[in-house]
Amino acid sequence: MGDCKKALVEASGNMEDAIVVLRKRGIASAAKKASRSTNEGSVASYIHAGGKIGVLVEVNCESDFVAKTEDFKELLHDISMHIAAADPKYVRREDVTEADFDREKEIYRAQAAQTGKPANVVEKIVEGKMAKFYEEVCLLDQPFIKEQSQTVGQLIATKIGKLGENITVRRFARFKVGDDQWTIATTKIAAEGEEQQQ
Amino acid sequence: MGDCKKALVEASGNMEDAIVVLRKRGIASAAKKASRSTNEGSVASYIHAGGKIGVLVEVNCESDFVAKTEDFKELLHDISMHIAAADPKYVRREDVTEADFDREKEIYRAQAAQTGKPANVVEKIVEGKMAKFYEEVCLLDQPFIKEQSQTVGQLIATKIGKLGENITVRRFARFKVGDDQWTIATTKIAAEGEEQQQ
Repeated sequence: MGDCKKALVEASGNMEDAIVVLRKRGIASAAKKASRSTNEGSVASYIHAGGKIGVLVEVNCESDFVAKTEDFKELLHDISMHIAAADPKYVRREDVTEADFDREKEIYRAQAAQTGKPANVVEKIVEGKMAKFYEEVCLLDQPFIKEQSQTVGQLIATKIGKLGENITVRRFARFKVGDDQWTIATTKIAAEGEEQQQ
Repeated sequence: MGDCKKALVEASGNMEDAIVVLRKRGIASAAKKASRSTNEGSVASYIHAGGKIGVLVEVNCESDFVAKTEDFKELLHDISMHIAAADPKYVRREDVTEADFDREKEIYRAQAAQTGKPANVVEKIVEGKMAKFYEEVCLLDQPFIKEQSQTVGQLIATKIGKLGENITVRRFARFKVGDDQWTIATTKIAAEGEEQQQ
């Protein structure tokens, strides 16, 4: 409450601006905690009505105490439901390998070339598509399905601010009945001291 | 009920033998259906108490009608709970590549060699371990956690007999909080007409 009041003051009474202030503070606060190891947490799931789409996600935090809070459970639920709907392919942009990135670029280039437009226009189209690439396929960069004005990363940053611990999405899986493909994504960014496995 | 009566007659009134008769019939019935495409089904999940272990599994059948039956849902629940507890690494033994198999064999050989026993004894130890390998790591060969006298494969065969459609486990994922490893297993065996992707 104190934070909200201060934010409103900073935003000269404008509610929307105050929300932006709080979010920036949340992000700053989250950034300070970003190097802290997250070895606790929970696994959550979301099955889309009818059982045709299912998601499994592991979200980590620093203590088992926080993992058991209603806030953390709400975050788990929101993230898993978001993954079911928005179908990300990676946890964060740092997980996109150079090979993946180049492959996507080539696909867009081939598509754009088919329009028959000049080479420099084709390049601009490709650039435009790649600029959107991360927010289309990286969970943390995707607009949060329940509130498109913030990304999933910002949603998490707000919870970090509220719960006082670093929170990281470790991995997720998404299955859709009948699809030959499935998604399994795990993040390569190691918190300090944490072992990394592919 | 008719099937049960016939089985008891065939087993000369012995209940345990009758169960074996029914299971064999179930397996025979399942085998007849094994080539039928399974393009419908459901995704289910199981979160172990405390949220430290989570499982996602896709089980296919032939029709959406069967996918919505209580029997099918019960099977989904049993399989996902089983995977959480028994931690299989593959769906079926055909999914174990020659490389995987050889690697396991080498690990057992190295362990057995450390006992200092003679080479022929070491080989026998390794053979014994590999004979058990499939039932330890392949879902369909594992003893069903709720009833160890039958394998998960037999559990499914019984449901195939009951529901009258082919039923296949397509893939599963298992996460455990804090583990660097995770399991994702998908089966390579294609039903007739079904496309295969790795």
